[in-house]
Amino acid sequence: METIDKPVLGDYIVIKAEEKGVTIIGLTRGKDTKFHHTEKLDQGEVLLAQFTENTSAIKIRGKSQIFTKHGVLKSGE
Amino acid sequence: METIDKPVLGDYIVIKAEEKGVTIIGLTRGKDTKFHHTEKLDQGEVLLAQFTENTSAIKIRGKSQIFTKHGVLKSGE
Amino acid sequence: METIDKPVLGDYIVIKAEEKGVTIIGLTRGKDTKFHHTEKLDQGEVLLAQFTENTSAIKIRGKSQIFTKHGVLKSGE
Amino acid sequence: METIDKPVLGDYIVIKAEEKGVTIIGLTRGKDTKFHHTEKLDQGEVLLAQFTENTSAIKIRGKSQIFTKHGVLKSGE
Amino acid sequence: METIDKPVLGDYIVIKAEEKGVTIIGLTRGKDTKFHHTEKLDQGEVLLAQFTENTSAIKIRGKSQIFTKHGVLKSGE
Amino acid sequence: METIDKPVLGDYIVIKAEEKGVTIIGLTRGKDTKFHHTEKLDQGEVLLAQFTENTSAIKIRGKSQIFTKHGVLKSGE
Amino acid sequence: METIDKPVLGDYIVIKAEEKGVTIIGLTRGKDTKFHHTEKLDQGEVLLAQFTENTSAIKIRGKSQIFTKHGVLKSGE
Amino acid sequence: METIDKPVLGDYIVIKAEEKGVTIIGLTRGKDTKFHHTEKLDQGEVLLAQFTENTSAIKIRGKSQIFTKHGVLKSGE
Amino acid sequence: METIDKPVLGDYIVIKAEEKGVTIIGLTRGKDTKFHHTEKLDQGEVLLAQFTENTSAIKIRGKSQIFTKHGVLKSGE
Amino acid sequence: METIDKPVLGDYIVIKAEEKGVTIIGLTRGKDTKFHHTEKLDQGEVLLAQFTENTSAIKIRGKSQIFTKHGVLKSGE
Amino acid sequence: METIDKPVLGDYIVIKAEEKGVTIIGLTRGKDTKFHHTEKLDQGEVLLAQFTENTSAIKIRGKSQIFTKHGVLKSGE
Amino acid sequence: METIDKPVLGDYIVIKAEEKGVTIIGLTRGKDTKFHHTEKLDQGEVLLAQFTENTSAIKIRGKSQIFTKHGVLKSGE
Repeated sequence: METIDKPVLGDYIVIKAEEKGVTIIGLTRGKDTKFHHTEKLDQGEVLLAQFTENTSAIKIRGKSQIFTKHGVLKSGE
Repeated sequence: METIDKPVLGDYIVIKAEEKGVTIIGLTRGKDTKFHHTEKLDQGEVLLAQFTENTSAIKIRGKSQIFTKHGVLKSGE
Repeated sequence: METIDKPVLGDYIVIKAEEKGVTIIGLTRGKDTKFHHTEKLDQGEVLLAQFTENTSAIKIRGKSQIFTKHGVLKSGE
Repeated sequence: METIDKPVLGDYIVIKAEEKGVTIIGLTRGKDTKFHHTEKLDQGEVLLAQFTENTSAIKIRGKSQIFTKHGVLKSGE
Repeated sequence: METIDKPVLGDYIVIKAEEKGVTIIGLTRGKDTKFHHTEKLDQGEVLLAQFTENTSAIKIRGKSQIFTKHGVLKSGE
Repeated sequence: METIDKPVLGDYIVIKAEEKGVTIIGLTRGKDTKFHHTEKLDQGEVLLAQFTENTSAIKIRGKSQIFTKHGVLKSGE
Repeated sequence: METIDKPVLGDYIVIKAEEKGVTIIGLTRGKDTKFHHTEKLDQGEVLLAQFTENTSAIKIRGKSQIFTKHGVLKSGE
Repeated sequence: METIDKPVLGDYIVIKAEEKGVTIIGLTRGKDTKFHHTEKLDQGEVLLAQFTENTSAIKIRGKSQIFTKHGVLKSGE
Repeated sequence: METIDKPVLGDYIVIKAEEKGVTIIGLTRGKDTKFHHTEKLDQGEVLLAQFTENTSAIKIRGKSQIFTKHGVLKSGE
Repeated sequence: METIDKPVLGDYIVIKAEEKGVTIIGLTRGKDTKFHHTEKLDQGEVLLAQFTENTSAIKIRGKSQIFTKHGVLKSGE
Repeated sequence: METIDKPVLGDYIVIKAEEKGVTIIGLTRGKDTKFHHTEKLDQGEVLLAQFTENTSAIKIRGKSQIFTKHGVLKSGE
Repeated sequence: METIDKPVLGDYIVIKAEEKGVTIIGLTRGKDTKFHHTEKLDQGEVLLAQFTENTSAIKIRGKSQIFTKHGVLKSGE
């Protein structure tokens, strides 16, 4: 499958930690779906993250507010 | 069939587990439709997942809230 | 007919089983329209499925709720 | 006429059978317009079907509800 | 005139027969405008038909309801 | 002037005859603007017609209802 | 100036004659702006006309109703 | 500067003369801005005119109503 | 910098002179920004002018009404 | 960085001077950001100016009204 | 994966520091997700930042207001 | 990463200084994020600035009003 991608223009999500130790895990794109990066947030910290050539899924643990194109939701409740 | 795809720009869904052990299963794109990845979520965890070159269907078991472009629904009820 | 397709960007539907044994059948794209995959859902399970290079029609048996770009409907009633 | 098509991205319709024996017939694209596939639905079954490289017209017999981009209508009444 | 067309993505109309013997006639694209296909519908039958490489005009005889992008109208009255 | 056209995707109009003998005339695209096809409609008949490689103007005689992207109008009054 | 045009997809206007002898004149595209075609309409007749490779201006004489993308207006008053 | 233009798809304006002798003047595109065509309208006449490869400005003298994408205005008052 | 432009499709503004002697000045695109054309309008005259390969700025002196995509304003007050 | 730009289609802003001596300064695109052109406006004069291959920033001194895609604002207050 | 990107057209976010010492950290695009730049803001300072070829995630510490396409949120609370 | 950019079409922001000495700093695109240009504004001055091939972030110090696609905000408070 040939791909002509535009990663800089990719969509992004926004995560605001509502407690200490919120974990955001990037899962690999491609045949194997593995953890490739883990980012820890302290309470009040915000992460804005794009889907990329390396990340096609994102897992979030702990209490946070998540802003996406399908709406806003809370994790960790 | 020639394909010129833009996977980084692909759509994504959001799943919030509402009980321990929600299972999200990626099914393979292509001639054979097999399970290729299983991701387990604990209660309150959130997964954001794109359709990819390898995943053209996603199966969800257990109680969760699912955010899609066609609306929000609940599984496991 | 030359085709330059973008399957990862294809549309998807969402099916939520409302009883045990909902059957989702992928029918082949191309000259012959055959069953090529059958997926069974237990009550409460959700399947998100794209139209793909191999699937141009989807048949649903049993009680389910179906989310599409033309609206939401129920099968099996 | 050169064609550079994107069949996976094609539009689809949704048909819900409201009686036993609803018949959905695919008519061939091209110079000859013939029946090339017939799909039978039992009451409550749902079919989602794209226009494809092989199907440029679809005929529906029997009582059903049809979801299209021009609205929702009933056949067989 | 070079043409790079996308016929699978073409627009379609929906016709619901409201009496026996509704006739839908495809007229040829190109220099000559001839009848190339005639489809008969019984009362309650529905036809969904695309404009194609071979059909640039469609004629409808008999009582029917026609769904188009310019609105819904009735023939045969 | 090089042209890369997409005739199957062209716009179409809808004409419903409101009396016997409504005449729809296709006028040629190109340097000469001549009648190249005449289609007669009986009362109640409907014609859906695209602008094509051969038709860049359409003339309508007799009482009819015409559906276009600029609105709905009546001829022959 | 290289041009890659899509004339079949061009915009069209609609003219409904409100008296006998409405005249619609196509003016030539290009360096010289001359009359290249004159179409006469009787009362009640309707003409749908595209801008084309040969026509970049249209002049209307006599009482008519004109439907355009900028709104509906009347000539000949 | 390389240009790949689509003149048939260009925007057009509509001018309705509200007195005898309304003058519509096409000014040349390019380094020199000269009058290249003058069109006279009698009262009630309507002109629809595109911007073209040769016309990048249009001057209107006399009482008229002008329909543009920025709204409708009157000249000659 | 390679440029593949579509000048015929460029945006245009509309200026209506509200006094004698309104001056519309085209300023050159490119390294030097000079006056390259001056157009005088009498009261009531209207000018429709595109941005072009040669004009990237327009200066207006005198009382006029100016229609732009950002709204309508008055000069010379 | 390869660039395939469409400068004629670029966005423009509108500045209306509300006092004598409003200054509009074009700043150079590229590695160095220098003043490359200064335009003076008298009270009531209007300037419409595009971002261009040479101008990526515009500075405005003095009392004026500025029309942009993000809204209308006043300088010099 | 071939990429044909348009970084200048990329989306940007806006951060307004609401206390001294707000930290904005750019995380690298690509296989390794590392801090590659840290920008400190004093109270009242504003940073507008694009996602780029080098930055696919942004982390924000301290009290700030963040403007994104999914809405406005506060960090550091 | 190949880039085919359209810098003239890039987005711009608008900054209005609300005190003397507002500082607008362009930060470099690319591997190193350095200050490459500083623009000072006096009270009432307005700067319109695009994201460019050289600027992927903009920092603003001092009291100003900032107009962006995500809304209007104030710095320096």
